[in-house]
Amino acid sequence: MKTVEWDYTENTLQLIDQRILPGKLQLVTCSDYQQVAEAIRQMVVRGAPAIGATAAFGLALAANRSEANTIAGVRSAIAQAALVLQSARPTAVNLGWALKDMLEVADTDVSTAEELRRLILAAAQRLADQDIITNHRMAEHGSGLIGDGDTVIHHCNTGALAAVDWGTALGVLRLAHEQGKQVHVLVDETRPRLQGSRLTAWELEQYGIPYEIISDGAAGHFLQTGQVAKVFFGADRVAANGDVANKIGTYMLALAARDNDVPVYCVAPTSTIDISVASGELIPIEERGEDEVLNLQVAGVRVSPESARARNPAFDITPHRLLTAIVTEKGVVYPPFRTNLQFMLSQPE
Amino acid sequence: MKTVEWDYTENTLQLIDQRILPGKLQLVTCSDYQQVAEAIRQMVVRGAPAIGATAAFGLALAANRSEANTIAGVRSAIAQAALVLQSARPTAVNLGWALKDMLEVADTDVSTAEELRRLILAAAQRLADQDIITNHRMAEHGSGLIGDGDTVIHHCNTGALAAVDWGTALGVLRLAHEQGKQVHVLVDETRPRLQGSRLTAWELEQYGIPYEIISDGAAGHFLQTGQVAKVFFGADRVAANGDVANKIGTYMLALAARDNDVPVYCVAPTSTIDISVASGELIPIEERGEDEVLNLQVAGVRVSPESARARNPAFDITPHRLLTAIVTEKGVVYPPFRTNLQFMLSQPE
Repeated sequence: MKTVEWDYTENTLQLIDQRILPGKLQLVTCSDYQQVAEAIRQMVVRGAPAIGATAAFGLALAANRSEANTIAGVRSAIAQAALVLQSARPTAVNLGWALKDMLEVADTDVSTAEELRRLILAAAQRLADQDIITNHRMAEHGSGLIGDGDTVIHHCNTGALAAVDWGTALGVLRLAHEQGKQVHVLVDETRPRLQGSRLTAWELEQYGIPYEIISDGAAGHFLQTGQVAKVFFGADRVAANGDVANKIGTYMLALAARDNDVPVYCVAPTSTIDISVASGELIPIEERGEDEVLNLQVAGVRVSPESARARNPAFDITPHRLLTAIVTEKGVVYPPFRTNLQFMLSQPE
Repeated sequence: MKTVEWDYTENTLQLIDQRILPGKLQLVTCSDYQQVAEAIRQMVVRGAPAIGATAAFGLALAANRSEANTIAGVRSAIAQAALVLQSARPTAVNLGWALKDMLEVADTDVSTAEELRRLILAAAQRLADQDIITNHRMAEHGSGLIGDGDTVIHHCNTGALAAVDWGTALGVLRLAHEQGKQVHVLVDETRPRLQGSRLTAWELEQYGIPYEIISDGAAGHFLQTGQVAKVFFGADRVAANGDVANKIGTYMLALAARDNDVPVYCVAPTSTIDISVASGELIPIEERGEDEVLNLQVAGVRVSPESARARNPAFDITPHRLLTAIVTEKGVVYPPFRTNLQFMLSQPE
């Protein structure tokens, strides 16, 4: 079962509902692009690569459900849907990139509206298939960085659930494990949405990789007491200079790792690199609803006072000076990142 | 109502049950020292100064409940209780310090067992009263560091609930507020036990100080975007060189503050300074049960997989190089800490 999958019988999009894992493995079916946008916003689906593929299929749904008989009519339905989907999560670059890619496909010369519909769906499927290939290549490059017996801190969820399959940072750990290396993962629970406790822990159990969950604030203790060999995370967007926008808490984790000379690896496909953004502080940071911080319960009782307020930035910027390397599907990129990312982008697949 | 208070009618110790705040304000009554040790272990009472006073009253209970008719018999009951209380929380130095202080009182020349019982209770009461005076002095020294309009990040709970009254770092913010300064607090929720969301938020509401709760991992974002003027926290133990053992997550917070040139203040009475410990890595770090990490629920549903395991260190070490100053009841101590802490300790009250 894949995180994001087109149902060719019903012409609908099937998403694993990541909000209710690990308690239940349940699918959400989207029959129109508005439902897709809502699923992205509500984080039924999350993780930069998964969001990109989901949005592409969202455009396929928009084309498919449009009642237009003309090519121009279908194109207009696609363009309208792209705007709605784009606004669902502002930080992830894959979303904008996938939509842009698809809009180019929509501009292809075609003879009929029906041909355009088929073309758009095929392009979305190709994008999803390509994501799996890309992620497996990243895992191949990254697994060389993992030593036998390594204990690794991993932030958020970057596994198969964050992509169409395999994922980014977690894909690296999974492949290293499949290669027979002993890997032990300290899983940052990743407040506020707890993707570590929920999703990464669940995935690691599926793969048979030993792990323990830790509070995000405990990473520093394990790093300063010499219990950690490497730190791994993904990216929602990488700026031209190598600054990384990723799940809130990544910056503090990278800082603690560098303070203890522990290598820091960001695993991100080249599609996540936004060369148009010079540096991290130019990346917009999504601030989400305060309920994600305040809705915690212990033993059925709400933790914070009823009248409490909260702030909830979803991402932060890890400056490139804190990174040891960025693992892409084209290879491992080391500093100086501005030059080397540019070079890597210019390389063929 | 005080966090820790002796009931002179019933000869029992009353503790505010901090496990069920902010939902309910309820007292736990301890009638023997074993109950006191259990209350410390279960974190009915927490916070270094509060634990010290609680343990002192625990010895008063041991003396009071002992059926011995001889001075030696009461002394032996006190010594036995001290061992049990000492083992309840290994990291907080105030616990050991309060017990040592009380054992010295127990060695005073007395004529009767009854006199010894009265003496021990009076000494515990004096220690509790002294704690309030000490904390208010710290608040006076510390409030001078707060500017009008400051936004401050605060970790864990260091307020009245962590002491007999006033507290340490939160006492500073409270006094600054009472002096008419505008103070805004970003409250680290402080996983895993969420003392920030539970207790600090509750106290700030009582004092009328505006605040917002943030995930611990979000502190870095607010610091790197210039939204924070100062960082404040307490200490469970301070080594001779100024290294601070405090609630897990403090190290990463201090690191992120220094990376953005935001001043970092530790507020701790001189009783928390353990001159016998040369540096932080020699301080034992308590590792608590994994359920504190794993027992989270959202909407009544457990977050992590049923079979998940966790690691749960309760404290970490913030190296003295990350601290701007340590605020004590005798004054504000700046680097070099080894020399200046020694000097401050030698000063009269």
